[in-house]
Amino acid sequence: MFDSGVGGLTVVHALRRTLPGEDVVYLGDMARLPYGNKAPRTVERYSLACQQFLLDRRVKLVLIACNTASAIALPALEAASPVPVIGAVAPGAASALAATRNGHIGVICTLATMRSGAYAQAIGARDAAAIPTTLACPLLVPLAEEGWTDDEIAALVARRYLAQLFERDRAIDTLVLGCTHYPLLREVLGRVACELAGREVAIVDSASAMAEAAVDALGSNENQRTAAGRLDCFATDISRLDEVAPRFLGEPLTGFELVDL
Amino acid sequence: MFDSGVGGLTVVHALRRTLPGEDVVYLGDMARLPYGNKAPRTVERYSLACQQFLLDRRVKLVLIACNTASAIALPALEAASPVPVIGAVAPGAASALAATRNGHIGVICTLATMRSGAYAQAIGARDAAAIPTTLACPLLVPLAEEGWTDDEIAALVARRYLAQLFERDRAIDTLVLGCTHYPLLREVLGRVACELAGREVAIVDSASAMAEAAVDALGSNENQRTAAGRLDCFATDISRLDEVAPRFLGEPLTGFELVDL
Repeated sequence: MFDSGVGGLTVVHALRRTLPGEDVVYLGDMARLPYGNKAPRTVERYSLACQQFLLDRRVKLVLIACNTASAIALPALEAASPVPVIGAVAPGAASALAATRNGHIGVICTLATMRSGAYAQAIGARDAAAIPTTLACPLLVPLAEEGWTDDEIAALVARRYLAQLFERDRAIDTLVLGCTHYPLLREVLGRVACELAGREVAIVDSASAMAEAAVDALGSNENQRTAAGRLDCFATDISRLDEVAPRFLGEPLTGFELVDL
Repeated sequence: MFDSGVGGLTVVHALRRTLPGEDVVYLGDMARLPYGNKAPRTVERYSLACQQFLLDRRVKLVLIACNTASAIALPALEAASPVPVIGAVAPGAASALAATRNGHIGVICTLATMRSGAYAQAIGARDAAAIPTTLACPLLVPLAEEGWTDDEIAALVARRYLAQLFERDRAIDTLVLGCTHYPLLREVLGRVACELAGREVAIVDSASAMAEAAVDALGSNENQRTAAGRLDCFATDISRLDEVAPRFLGEPLTGFELVDL
């Protein structure tokens, strides 16, 4: 699995609960994060380098935890990989369609993911009657990284973005957190969404859906190991890693190895 | 001149007023921005690549607009360059010392610049009696990029950071904007600083001081041209460039050429 940073560790967390016997190799491309405000060509180039790093370690499945990389680079990554590749967008879209009652789905994500149109396409391909509305929220990533996740500023930023979303479609009953950083802001986003909608709004993210997609891709016979799988973590930059990684992973972190890409 | 993004165009703007006859080559490393939250080793590696790109174009002087790159990589850049190299930190420190009346100087900057201790060292080397206080403000860069520069959220974020700064030293009379993005937030930062201090606070940035340092480095005989100099801009990524660059540059932008580094 690779991600532009540590956010993908929320997916590792889900994966290790679903497939505890599998070995996981995680690469966080912190040196070049965030991917979310970069041009498609750049995101694709970086994503291919990350995948090649994993393929050189003989992985049998590639998971793209980063929504931006999934939204933009999935076709190029699939073309370059001899093993199956699972992105974050399709599982996220499927989760949203399972959760919605009226088909009105809001997607919040990075600028690059929004521009790709990937979520709207993935939702439309599964249910042509569904109505997705997508909004880029560039301030949410630094807010999550700063740890300002449940205070006046977080609430104001969430309100400013989500008000724009609900202005475009007041009937939204399901909100997709289309970026691996956003689960850290789940509480404030959920609260503000419910206030603005005046009713319950389902909050979904890709993490558990990606873990289920991994089970399908590997097939049941692959998952017979009873010993706990290894978790090997690599990063292109280690600044603040010790501080933020455990919050995302939900288990003690045994260390990252620094690599140049 | 190079920068991690477009913020350095504020320095280009100052430079073209001070030295209108000189040709300027500008490189913005947007693909890998922000530098401010990355490890020193990564910032140094990227800075050296940027400088080499400029040296390959036979520049006679290198200006590091990015405060983070200046704070961390100046010694490595000087060692690798056959021409003079001017960073942002020393001119910024000199400007602050010229502006302060009581020697109490506040510096706001990125995480990486704060950790380098470069501003405190540069101020201390020029005036051992001065008292610098440095604070990292990671949310200011995305706030400036989002264009939320004069509203409730900008004021709250400015207040939260500057309150921390004035708690550490209530006598601060001069505030250094130690990042090329921060001049876009100059008004709100200045207003909040004055409110918190209960008196005037001088706001200084490196842009004009760097232009003056360039005049000194080039010598008066170099500046005899009367025709307007060329401005050639290069970038490693062009996402949002059209949108944000003119605000920083203060003149029409004739285009950026995309390069891989």
